[in-house]
Amino acid sequence: MSIDTSLQAVEELLLSVARSSVPLLSEMSEHILSAGGKRLRPRLVLLAHAAAGGQNIAEVVPLAAAVEIIHTATLVHDDINDHGTLRRGRETVNSRWGSTFALLTGDYMFTRTYELMAPYSAELNLILVRAAIELVEGETLQIQASRQGVLDRDTYYQIISKKTAALFVACTELGATVAGAPREWIAALRDYAFNLGLAFQIIDDVLDLSSDAQTLGKNAGIDLAQGRGIAAVRDDGADVRSVAAVHVSPDTVPGPLKESLLSEQAPQVAIEIGRAKAHELAERALTSLETLPPSLARDELRALARQVVTRDH
Amino acid sequence: MSIDTSLQAVEELLLSVARSSVPLLSEMSEHILSAGGKRLRPRLVLLAHAAAGGQNIAEVVPLAAAVEIIHTATLVHDDINDHGTLRRGRETVNSRWGSTFALLTGDYMFTRTYELMAPYSAELNLILVRAAIELVEGETLQIQASRQGVLDRDTYYQIISKKTAALFVACTELGATVAGAPREWIAALRDYAFNLGLAFQIIDDVLDLSSDAQTLGKNAGIDLAQGRGIAAVRDDGADVRSVAAVHVSPDTVPGPLKESLLSEQAPQVAIEIGRAKAHELAERALTSLETLPPSLARDELRALARQVVTRDH
Repeated sequence: MSIDTSLQAVEELLLSVARSSVPLLSEMSEHILSAGGKRLRPRLVLLAHAAAGGQNIAEVVPLAAAVEIIHTATLVHDDINDHGTLRRGRETVNSRWGSTFALLTGDYMFTRTYELMAPYSAELNLILVRAAIELVEGETLQIQASRQGVLDRDTYYQIISKKTAALFVACTELGATVAGAPREWIAALRDYAFNLGLAFQIIDDVLDLSSDAQTLGKNAGIDLAQGRGIAAVRDDGADVRSVAAVHVSPDTVPGPLKESLLSEQAPQVAIEIGRAKAHELAERALTSLETLPPSLARDELRALARQVVTRDH
Repeated sequence: MSIDTSLQAVEELLLSVARSSVPLLSEMSEHILSAGGKRLRPRLVLLAHAAAGGQNIAEVVPLAAAVEIIHTATLVHDDINDHGTLRRGRETVNSRWGSTFALLTGDYMFTRTYELMAPYSAELNLILVRAAIELVEGETLQIQASRQGVLDRDTYYQIISKKTAALFVACTELGATVAGAPREWIAALRDYAFNLGLAFQIIDDVLDLSSDAQTLGKNAGIDLAQGRGIAAVRDDGADVRSVAAVHVSPDTVPGPLKESLLSEQAPQVAIEIGRAKAHELAERALTSLETLPPSLARDELRALARQVVTRDH
């Protein structure tokens, strides 16, 4: 069974959740929730559910909507901090209505998510809420690193684990748990999602360096300006900045690579290394899927891992 | 049984909830959560529980902490929008760490609240989350009114109902529901809390006009600058601003009062009218309590209603 019908139901639920008795809140929430986006996280929930043999569409659809709303609320708040003007091909809430109303729109969407989650078990609520806590922690660490102007490899991975991979993991865990999947399938899906999440974020950072706003549908170069994707390799006491350094351990950088990290081609080298690392993680994600029985949904999860590392926006 | 022991348990829980694996988030959350404050909302949860005959201290304490964290998170976000520098006698998170980190502190505290709520029933989760939605809606309406520079009486009451009374109502409903109270007791406590919440907010607005920062432990005059407590009485086409107008219907303003609303004494008149209205609402709150059986907790709820309207901070 295809997940297209379920995704359509998710879209409808997103719009109904956006509605408030305060017209301005409806308008702002709908502006960002109806702008589309890849809907990668709801897809993950639905595909994990299907790959684990789940049939419980009515129960899984609100969970898929909940993760998308949490994610979108985070984007609205991030756009305040980043002064982003473009998101999902539209003007940001921050840019159009100002930071005060953008803050309230994010708060509104977070709160509506927990209303959607109220009927679910403590187990499912904890899966989502703990990922949401990691999102906030990851964003905090990222801003701290950017203010300090120093980002080492371990911190970079800690940030992208919390900021991106944690919610990906929660997606598959929610879908598979509702499907009543055995423990080892859930573990396999969690591993898949964790590596997929890291790969996705590395490619996101690479695209931020190498692409332009029109292709991305959001501002390019912001992550770079913020210091994500930039790291300081402290070498012989010198503070050498390089986007590549976050993907290679300073101790293991071979001589020629170290030279190119110091050269004007550093960004290009960083992009190459980042892409290679993302492909490696996507391969690991694919391996995890072998624990699951063959299914159309498993095929789609595989295809997703390949798309994530080859995408250009 | 006194609620002092339970309140102490709430304080400990607040501090443990503030803890994050990201030290900065712990520091910021603890800064505001450990600053004290009146703890009016946790008191309401615990007193409603006790007044309804509840014995379930272990179950009610986290609910009391949850409402306080939601309330505090809202204050942290409001202080960003208001550029407040003083809160609970301390520098605001916004003033000390900047708006970006203040935004994340609020998000962190909201999310930790729902982690605390996860083990509870859908019914209790919905009581809290729906009040939280009203908080955001009330704040949005208030800022809209202030930007438009017009606030009529109905809008003022809509704002304070959502922004303040809704969470007060949720407090008593949570406490009484956990106590297994009969429906009519819950309804009586809701009525009590609704009127108490309105009275509390009117006095808050009056104090904002008439007091100073040192007494309040937060900035004075901000609400006034924002347009709360200011209303436009459109009279003969003229846009007459008065803090008092929000408490009296323009149609029913007697001649001499209307004159004083136009005079230089307008703020003083407004303060008098606001206080009178708050006392009237507190009386209504006291009447609702008569439905409950006599108890020490009911006496304390009564005392609370009297304190709320006579307080100077």
